[in-house]
Amino acid sequence: MTTATYHCELAWLPDGRVGSDVTVEVTDGRITALSDGHDGDGAAPQGTDAVALPGLVLPGAANAHSHAFHRALRGATHAGGGTFWAWRECMYAAAAVLDPDRYHALARATFAEMALAGFTAVGEFHYLHHQPDGRPYTDPNAFGAALVAAAAEAGVRIALLDTCYLAGGFGEELQPRQRRFSDGDAANWAARVEDLHRAHGHADHAVIGAAIHSVRAVPADQLPVVAAWARSQDAPLHVHVSEQPAENEACLAAHGRTPVRLLADAGALGPRTSAVHATHLTDRDVADLEASGTHVCLCPTTEADLGDGIGPARQLATAGVPLTLGTDSHASVDPFVEARRAEWDQRLATLARGHLDADALLRALTRDGQASLGFGDAGRLEVGARADLVAVDLGSVRTAGADPATAAAAVVFGASAADVTDVIVDGRPVVEGRAHVLGDVGAQLTHAIAAVREEAP
Amino acid sequence: MTTATYHCELAWLPDGRVGSDVTVEVTDGRITALSDGHDGDGAAPQGTDAVALPGLVLPGAANAHSHAFHRALRGATHAGGGTFWAWRECMYAAAAVLDPDRYHALARATFAEMALAGFTAVGEFHYLHHQPDGRPYTDPNAFGAALVAAAAEAGVRIALLDTCYLAGGFGEELQPRQRRFSDGDAANWAARVEDLHRAHGHADHAVIGAAIHSVRAVPADQLPVVAAWARSQDAPLHVHVSEQPAENEACLAAHGRTPVRLLADAGALGPRTSAVHATHLTDRDVADLEASGTHVCLCPTTEADLGDGIGPARQLATAGVPLTLGTDSHASVDPFVEARRAEWDQRLATLARGHLDADALLRALTRDGQASLGFGDAGRLEVGARADLVAVDLGSVRTAGADPATAAAAVVFGASAADVTDVIVDGRPVVEGRAHVLGDVGAQLTHAIAAVREEAP
Repeated sequence: MTTATYHCELAWLPDGRVGSDVTVEVTDGRITALSDGHDGDGAAPQGTDAVALPGLVLPGAANAHSHAFHRALRGATHAGGGTFWAWRECMYAAAAVLDPDRYHALARATFAEMALAGFTAVGEFHYLHHQPDGRPYTDPNAFGAALVAAAAEAGVRIALLDTCYLAGGFGEELQPRQRRFSDGDAANWAARVEDLHRAHGHADHAVIGAAIHSVRAVPADQLPVVAAWARSQDAPLHVHVSEQPAENEACLAAHGRTPVRLLADAGALGPRTSAVHATHLTDRDVADLEASGTHVCLCPTTEADLGDGIGPARQLATAGVPLTLGTDSHASVDPFVEARRAEWDQRLATLARGHLDADALLRALTRDGQASLGFGDAGRLEVGARADLVAVDLGSVRTAGADPATAAAAVVFGASAADVTDVIVDGRPVVEGRAHVLGDVGAQLTHAIAAVREEAP
Repeated sequence: MTTATYHCELAWLPDGRVGSDVTVEVTDGRITALSDGHDGDGAAPQGTDAVALPGLVLPGAANAHSHAFHRALRGATHAGGGTFWAWRECMYAAAAVLDPDRYHALARATFAEMALAGFTAVGEFHYLHHQPDGRPYTDPNAFGAALVAAAAEAGVRIALLDTCYLAGGFGEELQPRQRRFSDGDAANWAARVEDLHRAHGHADHAVIGAAIHSVRAVPADQLPVVAAWARSQDAPLHVHVSEQPAENEACLAAHGRTPVRLLADAGALGPRTSAVHATHLTDRDVADLEASGTHVCLCPTTEADLGDGIGPARQLATAGVPLTLGTDSHASVDPFVEARRAEWDQRLATLARGHLDADALLRALTRDGQASLGFGDAGRLEVGARADLVAVDLGSVRTAGADPATAAAAVVFGASAADVTDVIVDGRPVVEGRAHVLGDVGAQLTHAIAAVREEAP
């Protein structure tokens, strides 16, 4: 049994209050005691061996939607203009040259970048399964295993959302570059994922979950098979939904229903499900998401970068749909940037302020984000929870001026990933004094991205 | 005569090319020689005393629109929701308690934050002139002098855009909290500014320019007086234009014309003029801005934070209107964040990519931004220009993966202010190894903001 004690100058507590002089005792990766100076039950650090965490301490943020290999595209897709669909061609070129070893190195560095930013868990929406021509590797889960290992080495938890991807569009064959994504049908997908789950599903840092790439990529008759597998394992099920108007139009043409309704009819919605993006929704879609308890994962920077548009975040929140946040294509890896963009985009769309406040955005980043990945025991500073602690400097040029009353808003609306000083994941220090235990993550990213680019045609 | 030589690993050159191994010789604050390794005329640093600037070196960015005291509001205005107009009440409360000494300390720290981010010049849109009850201080330019001194100490150039502010709205008296902004009429304003110009207009680091707060705050018959003073001094003239639909509606009701047309009719547009925001424009407004050669200053983060809406940046650029960028209310002080948001907001509004590319955004930040402040000899790496050099780390977790072909886009779309390592302004090193010559700027901001908040009612 290992015990450590942390003394937080300020901490964001589950009731939304910012407590001062909060002492957190951690035993075997869990919070085993927590005392709040303002409760009058012992403000000072107990003993001299408490580790001081200055600034504002948050529970760990969850990066609820990630495609790790997209990190190699950052900054490299802006030359040509075009649309989401042109960007997708750049992305396919990167996907075409990855193998499990190269992806392991790239993902480890990308996950370490996330840890440095204050993310303690990642939802990896993983559809790169097979060799470029579609044949399985000797280990058909070589990529998935590489990603699970990469997360462990980078010190973050992973929900490996193994993605079913079968078609190139409604009633369309796979394109050649999509072949490596496909298992042929959902039954084959489930059999492969079942193996992955047996091998890695019981690691403390990993959840093996499911994903439907989209209603474009999984035929309607295959959707219930994926949903049934996730249900059988009580596992998270994520799905890209209505990111682009073209998807809605094609779905209506093929099925006479919106993507949300098609998923609802397939039994794919519910509290374990996350609808990713959900940018172009009808009022009926919002009602279906709410009624089923489905999460909606916003990826505001990616949605801006790809020109997806501004979704109905305020309407969803008001309806009671739990929101989560993800960095998706990793144009930026910064929880605070995603959080404030979610609010700022609503302001731009409505010409009014005050849609998602700092507490709501922090809940999306932490409690709801973690729950959406199957880590329902994380994302809050309370006894029994996983011991994730993220300390944010309140004295940087970006955050200076914060006081206890405004600290949560100062961080959400002003901090950057560069202000995260210390990150503890499941009780293990991963980032100390802005340095990751893996060393120079920038250099590791440079090396891993160069290896991918060298192979690109 | 002092000479220094810098060796830039990569540098963004005036033709938009990124050169490798660029050597820059600086004498008395000007670039006196520049050799580009790719020209074959001497790539290596000349002699052993060249200072190495790793990463991508940019000419200095101009923060073309600033209200320095708004820095005290960062993170502190999000609780209540509401609109731009509710936010303005928070801002007035901060303005009410400033005196020249407190403002000097706050502005110095805020300008130092700008230097750390890679801004080498600031356009300070300054309307806080008098005592709270409207009476002049013993030195009627005590505030202006404090701001000019603060910039010098922080190591950045300043265009002090002394602002005429006379009315509380179209045909409306000043509100009590607006009294300290007013000189009574434009002739009094001009007389005071003339004194300020005599005292400070010949400092190498300062330009004394003019501003019309808005067509709301300066009656139509007073506009030509302000424009005439700026013309007589060949000085920049900035004006808030059409930030909010309510301004347009009130202007149309009062004058039967849009704000842009009213300014055009008053002789207030032209190449020395910057229309700040220009968010809600008619096609005729765009044509008037283009025909007159007026700059448009976008402040994307502030426009998001205040719910102003997304302006027609693409339309303006296509029409040939030179764009500049400013951090305005300082919700964020980061040139790269402003630049990419300008493009990303266009993507959100149009659902397509590729409106303002990295080169266009860097030109707005540097050459056009500097020119809009009266520093037409700055903002480009060429012989004869002011020696502003800003080095951006290409090996951080944010920028890793950049290569010479993608370096400009990697910085514009991926870097943060935290990636700026070295800043030289007019040949003077101001930031070295991410540290400002003034020391701990975060601590100075904390102290200065606390002093303002202590006085707040």
